[in-house]
Amino acid sequence: MAIGFEAHRVSGAGAARLGRLYTAHGVVETPVFMPVGTQAAVKAVTPEELEQAGARIILSNTYHLYLRPGADIIAEAGGLHKFMNWSGSILTDSGGYQVFSLGELREIREEGVEFRSHLDGSRHFFTPELAVKVQEALGSGIAMVLDECPPYPSDRDYVLSSMERTTRWAERSLRAATRQDQALFAIVQGGMYRDLREQHARQLIDLDFPGYAIGGLSVGEPKELMYEMLSWTAPLLPENKPRYLMGVGSPEDLLVGVEHGVDMFDCVLPTRLARHGVVLTLDGRLNLYNAVYTRDYSPISTECTCPACCSYSRAYIRHLLKANEILGVRLTTLHNLHFILQLMADVRASLLEGTFSSFKREFLSRYKTAEESKSS
Amino acid sequence: MAIGFEAHRVSGAGAARLGRLYTAHGVVETPVFMPVGTQAAVKAVTPEELEQAGARIILSNTYHLYLRPGADIIAEAGGLHKFMNWSGSILTDSGGYQVFSLGELREIREEGVEFRSHLDGSRHFFTPELAVKVQEALGSGIAMVLDECPPYPSDRDYVLSSMERTTRWAERSLRAATRQDQALFAIVQGGMYRDLREQHARQLIDLDFPGYAIGGLSVGEPKELMYEMLSWTAPLLPENKPRYLMGVGSPEDLLVGVEHGVDMFDCVLPTRLARHGVVLTLDGRLNLYNAVYTRDYSPISTECTCPACCSYSRAYIRHLLKANEILGVRLTTLHNLHFILQLMADVRASLLEGTFSSFKREFLSRYKTAEESKSS
Repeated sequence: MAIGFEAHRVSGAGAARLGRLYTAHGVVETPVFMPVGTQAAVKAVTPEELEQAGARIILSNTYHLYLRPGADIIAEAGGLHKFMNWSGSILTDSGGYQVFSLGELREIREEGVEFRSHLDGSRHFFTPELAVKVQEALGSGIAMVLDECPPYPSDRDYVLSSMERTTRWAERSLRAATRQDQALFAIVQGGMYRDLREQHARQLIDLDFPGYAIGGLSVGEPKELMYEMLSWTAPLLPENKPRYLMGVGSPEDLLVGVEHGVDMFDCVLPTRLARHGVVLTLDGRLNLYNAVYTRDYSPISTECTCPACCSYSRAYIRHLLKANEILGVRLTTLHNLHFILQLMADVRASLLEGTFSSFKREFLSRYKTAEESKSS
Repeated sequence: MAIGFEAHRVSGAGAARLGRLYTAHGVVETPVFMPVGTQAAVKAVTPEELEQAGARIILSNTYHLYLRPGADIIAEAGGLHKFMNWSGSILTDSGGYQVFSLGELREIREEGVEFRSHLDGSRHFFTPELAVKVQEALGSGIAMVLDECPPYPSDRDYVLSSMERTTRWAERSLRAATRQDQALFAIVQGGMYRDLREQHARQLIDLDFPGYAIGGLSVGEPKELMYEMLSWTAPLLPENKPRYLMGVGSPEDLLVGVEHGVDMFDCVLPTRLARHGVVLTLDGRLNLYNAVYTRDYSPISTECTCPACCSYSRAYIRHLLKANEILGVRLTTLHNLHFILQLMADVRASLLEGTFSSFKREFLSRYKTAEESKSS
């Protein structure tokens, strides 16, 4: 369960850290964004394209892979890295978030969670031990413990009992883990309750995991509340271990997360937006379905060096999207991944140069957030 | 309307020819297969990938581009080559085949054909002159005359009158053409009637087009009948001009076409099959949705050097297809294009070496045609 990590705080940049994560499949510079490859593929792109965009670590989903094609098939293929031809690092989630999102299709007990597959309705029983076993079969470099992520809002009593069960599950996960080349991260829950966040962080830190995630944020709460929770929770985590903010990935949230000392992020946002024709630029989001781009022969961004911006116009990509051509989604996906990964590279460079605060200020003064660009 | 072409018959290979087509966008070795990029994109792949697969000329569809995004937009973008970022050659069809396939949505008159868009029901009127004008706006190196492709079966009287109108349309097209960097090809129709094929070929040859296509085949007739028509029609065409068999592209049909002296082919087959999970191999077609590939960790073909076969297993590609991941269709498309383009490269090499007949015999003795592989 070894993972190497070194990070140091950067002066004049809040709690922001610059670091390196040493995984069984290579070194990852942090802070880092992990593109999401839910079903053993980052939607629409190849591993070569991911690497060219600057990705060094991706996330894949245990729940989805357990159901299809099945962990046994991936293990037989030589593990997830070999199955999907990705030589960089992989973090697998535990499947908890997906299972708990099933709502009425699942039932939580102390032993684990029973659920019905969203694919075929078949019954399954997930335990902390099984989540570890499946992730060991997948062979990811970083695995996550099975946890419950309570919905927002949830009352304090529920969050407390759920969180205590998540701690017991974390203990069971640690005992179940056997692979020396896979690091198991715990997930701090506690809802929107400061004292519960503190209590849960303490419980999990006592168990001495090699890394800690902040879960239960970006689940529908107001953005200010999320930032407040983040500002309380991040400082509770050990300085010498990687901190991972789950499910967060809008440009503005990444910058806030970095400022609070987060090292790792993942989010489907850039790839999902791309499939809806929405591209990220330094000025905010553009929806290429908009008629204003019909005769716009300029690239998505003249400041971008991605394959889409080097060779194709907004007018052409808009045409492809409207004509339902796969190439359209390929190009928007490549662009958005490149944008987010370049943003993180710029963040790391600014941390190295001691200019993170001004970088963040300048970026945010120009970048229109989603709500602003909707009305523009 | 200049296009350069040189070809010579190869001894011991029937009427097969080895040649070179000099277009405004480069030299194309013949016999050649043209991948189809209906909507200004070969489905699922980039121009770079096409080129790496060996494509030097592609086909695009005037009907589709006229309706969406509109020829004016493509012209404003600098032409189709620039719009879609393809530096090789492009042949555009006239839109005739698509319009006549609309059935009740179109009405043919001497002046042209009135039709309703399959996209939004809007009314349009296509004439031979407009088909030339649109293709000149697109800027393809080879344009096709507007023709009528009668359905199979059609009675002799109908085919005769349709064919004579197609000749008059061909004359009008020639008079309308103005671009010196675009060659206009005529299309020999005549249905399944030998005398009409002969008559139509003579009429069009008298008009001295720079190239001739064989139309009206592969429209539902039995394969033996198609081969018979091909064997009658191909020898009627001038030796010193390129011959193009429209809409044909299964491996077995390509070999028969080459043997009859055809230089150019196009077909959606390899890309359409790929989107249905069907891949071409030297042993025939494989349907990767088949459960037999669930744990098959070998590549689609150990004899193939395409990106899909170099890095991915049948089991992985099957998983992607079943999970509806775009990458699955990307990989099957790359493979099928590579297979067909490699087949044509092998055909040219065998013509050069004087071994075409044995190459064809050996290929067909191993390759199971579609019907055979269905039952296996």
